[in-house]
Amino acid sequence: MSGERVERRLAAILAADVVAYSRLMGQDEAGTLARLRTHRRELINPEITEHKGRIVKTTGDGILIEFPSVVEAVACAVAVQRGMVDRNAGTPEKQQIVFRVGINLGDIIIAEDNDIHGDGVNVAARLEGIAEPGGICVAAIVHDQVRDKLDLVFDDMGDQVLKNIAPPSGSTACGSPPPRPRQALRQLKRRLPFPCQTSRRSQCCHSKT
Amino acid sequence: MSGERVERRLAAILAADVVAYSRLMGQDEAGTLARLRTHRRELINPEITEHKGRIVKTTGDGILIEFPSVVEAVACAVAVQRGMVDRNAGTPEKQQIVFRVGINLGDIIIAEDNDIHGDGVNVAARLEGIAEPGGICVAAIVHDQVRDKLDLVFDDMGDQVLKNIAPPSGSTACGSPPPRPRQALRQLKRRLPFPCQTSRRSQCCHSKT
Repeated sequence: MSGERVERRLAAILAADVVAYSRLMGQDEAGTLARLRTHRRELINPEITEHKGRIVKTTGDGILIEFPSVVEAVACAVAVQRGMVDRNAGTPEKQQIVFRVGINLGDIIIAEDNDIHGDGVNVAARLEGIAEPGGICVAAIVHDQVRDKLDLVFDDMGDQVLKNIAPPSGSTACGSPPPRPRQALRQLKRRLPFPCQTSRRSQCCHSKT
Repeated sequence: MSGERVERRLAAILAADVVAYSRLMGQDEAGTLARLRTHRRELINPEITEHKGRIVKTTGDGILIEFPSVVEAVACAVAVQRGMVDRNAGTPEKQQIVFRVGINLGDIIIAEDNDIHGDGVNVAARLEGIAEPGGICVAAIVHDQVRDKLDLVFDDMGDQVLKNIAPPSGSTACGSPPPRPRQALRQLKRRLPFPCQTSRRSQCCHSKT
């Protein structure tokens, strides 16, 4: 909590990576890379553009995206996961590229090179880590913002521990016992062909209809 | 939840108004307007600029401001309320201009005329309404974002009803009883010469040191 002024802004942060990337690369390096590149070009990048996201960085199998609106971030994730179900149809399961997605919301710090930092980013990465293959795991703070704005249903997964992440204030009310490192987690898996989760720090979603 | 696309963005929303404005105007219309104008020019507008806020609209005694960062929004509110304490020193109490401030965070809709709409805005106005004179009342979602980033202490005021506002999802977990129209509210009043409050939808703050 230094006094130094930094540039901050509210953003929705989406972290995604490929499930079992090392195995896929081990069994077919060139083919996996080519399929991943095609998914990005034909599905993922257009959806990010459509929903006004900015790709902050990519790693071999991962991507970190910032959105000015959390509604747009969740809508983008749902469109991508829906799209991937269609694109994987007909591909042998062992060759399928499947994403895990985590979405958080936070007051992030913008570095000079436009990289983003802060607890909001770290939590998004942790949520991605606990999302189910093909699923979306969003923070409860995200759920609060989208629940009345998108036709999605969220399941609560109860409290969860996120490594090295302090709990939200909701579980550390003044006068209550010392804070415990837990997160209320939700999961939802009706209708949509992929699982969605929610918690104090994470929720997942699917269409209501 | 229509399918129509609207422009959305995450923002911190600050609503403020003058306590007992009608009484002040009734006893000295020209003097009250002049003092309010001076406070705006010398204190409030410079702080809004310093913290990158945008004045969305002003009414006779009220102001609605949007900030890209919730940390900046709270820092701005604290600077203004601190400044007003200094500026009111020496003024007879009946002539003092005292503000109530409410701060929320939300995925808001931007109208073509740059006005802002949505639950996030409505809640900010409700929080302002329950803030103490000279105080700041912020949503718990705001507290979660600033508690590790600003040297402020927040007091929890427990659950509160905000008129016509649905409760956050934290109090409507799946499988729990039907949602009740309540908000967890906090208030803090140590050290700083003005009260601060917090809730599921509101918190207040003051310096830690």
